[in-house]
Amino acid sequence: MVSMRDIAKITGLSIATISRYMNHSGYVSEEASLRIQKALEETDYIPNRNAHALLTKRSGTIGLLVPSLVNPYFAYMATRIGNRIQKDQRGCILGFTEDNAKKEKRAMEMFMGYRVDGIIIVRAVEPTLWQALDVPIVSFESHIGPQIITVTADNVRGGRQAFRHLLEKGCRRFIHVRGPRWFTALAERETGFVEAATEAGKEVLFIQLEGDYQVDVSLDERRIDFSFQRGDGVFVFNDVNALSVMQAIKSQGLSVPEDVKVMGFDNNIASQFYNPSLTTVDQKVVETSNLCYELLDQLIADPSLDKRTRVVPVDLLERHSTAGVFA
Amino acid sequence: MVSMRDIAKITGLSIATISRYMNHSGYVSEEASLRIQKALEETDYIPNRNAHALLTKRSGTIGLLVPSLVNPYFAYMATRIGNRIQKDQRGCILGFTEDNAKKEKRAMEMFMGYRVDGIIIVRAVEPTLWQALDVPIVSFESHIGPQIITVTADNVRGGRQAFRHLLEKGCRRFIHVRGPRWFTALAERETGFVEAATEAGKEVLFIQLEGDYQVDVSLDERRIDFSFQRGDGVFVFNDVNALSVMQAIKSQGLSVPEDVKVMGFDNNIASQFYNPSLTTVDQKVVETSNLCYELLDQLIADPSLDKRTRVVPVDLLERHSTAGVFA
Repeated sequence: MVSMRDIAKITGLSIATISRYMNHSGYVSEEASLRIQKALEETDYIPNRNAHALLTKRSGTIGLLVPSLVNPYFAYMATRIGNRIQKDQRGCILGFTEDNAKKEKRAMEMFMGYRVDGIIIVRAVEPTLWQALDVPIVSFESHIGPQIITVTADNVRGGRQAFRHLLEKGCRRFIHVRGPRWFTALAERETGFVEAATEAGKEVLFIQLEGDYQVDVSLDERRIDFSFQRGDGVFVFNDVNALSVMQAIKSQGLSVPEDVKVMGFDNNIASQFYNPSLTTVDQKVVETSNLCYELLDQLIADPSLDKRTRVVPVDLLERHSTAGVFA
Repeated sequence: MVSMRDIAKITGLSIATISRYMNHSGYVSEEASLRIQKALEETDYIPNRNAHALLTKRSGTIGLLVPSLVNPYFAYMATRIGNRIQKDQRGCILGFTEDNAKKEKRAMEMFMGYRVDGIIIVRAVEPTLWQALDVPIVSFESHIGPQIITVTADNVRGGRQAFRHLLEKGCRRFIHVRGPRWFTALAERETGFVEAATEAGKEVLFIQLEGDYQVDVSLDERRIDFSFQRGDGVFVFNDVNALSVMQAIKSQGLSVPEDVKVMGFDNNIASQFYNPSLTTVDQKVVETSNLCYELLDQLIADPSLDKRTRVVPVDLLERHSTAGVFA
């Protein structure tokens, strides 16, 4: 690859002059500027981003933290956000937590080592890691601290919509399959569902998935040890686990939606292809991803930006897993 | 965040001394070294990777190029590879092509701007972009050039296995749903399937998916304009499109596997949850991802590493979409 030294050789100018030109850091004559510009174009010179980062204190690098990419919702989000970052000629450093605080710390150190201009966090495990950092951060779903903007779906409202929908479908015995308690967004979905049930004078039976399962991976149906004879309307905390629940129901000789109606939360890109296709609460992945990136972009330009939580409205999306009305 | 200046202040030493210590670039007394070490530990100082990259000519950065992350196979691959990169305290710069040569060029320039130590490419569109680069590259599936190591599944053998399996299941009228022709791995799968059919004296009917569809996204079944009455054994070029094909078959009033048996290629993590679960050729995502990273790691350490293509064996994985034998 062409180096700054090569450009100096081609133009007959000093490296110091080339460097001043490239970093706008001092006087370069018009004649020299033209020669340098021509040489850069002819050789397809690619400026060194590391040098530029040191000189300008702007690295042009954005950290993107995800638990993993196996949940199609996060994979799609990373694709959208990563494409926006690339389009703006910024670099996207990808960090993984796998919902593990130690890995999250390693990712944080990685980001700060690159002196990133900003960070987008998708589901933090260890808020204290991020609270003290002096760098713009937008967090999806997790409320981390007053200096960090949270973007979240209206989870409580989504939970309420889920209950109302199952009620309208004639369900009488409600089940909520709960996610891990530490994850705020999931707790909010449950709150909305239970509030709406209480208002309607209905009880909710809870299934807490146990063990070291991963939130983002469909669970082996054999690990769901619960008789679905006990309910006829099931709200699962996310789509990938709703898929496992539907498999478990079928393996118990029951049919979805004829015997039990099931719904999820997310509208991940796969949920329309589940069989039956899944009724879900649409978290608007495109709007949400764009909003996260645009807020970060604004925050980098203006650190005084309003830090209040941005709540993205949700919509109930009716598909086949809740079709028909119970008599 | 703590800066090198802060460390100088705490230790009472010059920035030049701190820099010599951190970059192992000159003499620092034992007493000063101990003071610096203590200050770094007490303040959780995170070294500037950009500065280190400039000084050592090793950026510690790896470029990872993907078409997008919506195909669960690539999402899982990126998760595995990204975790390996992070575990080795390297940074993972993520680039997207969306199968578009212009975006691929932008990603290449991004990688080279960071002076990455190496690149892992998942499906290149424009081989010429990468051939002339003086940087270690491992390419999954695409054969780019003699200096670049290709890692690929045994696609021809996989195609042959697919045919043999459908034949054993009593299929008599074979259909191959073809991927885009520019993508070598898909052409190889077809070659294997057709070769095995020819050897068995059977004909194959082709469906070429048309238009500007994306290879990695399940297609709307209404866009598959073909009567599946014409065959009873269908081999689709990948899993996500096998899902669309199964939907199309069902929308034509036929059943899988009772009327038509269907199989895919990949064994993406979702394919076991399709309904019916999908018989497929397992591309061994874990082995493949590990191999790509380990080869790149070796290539960075030793540029003279053998550049021959590494072929990963495949296995046929029988599930419900080909259950039963036709009489």
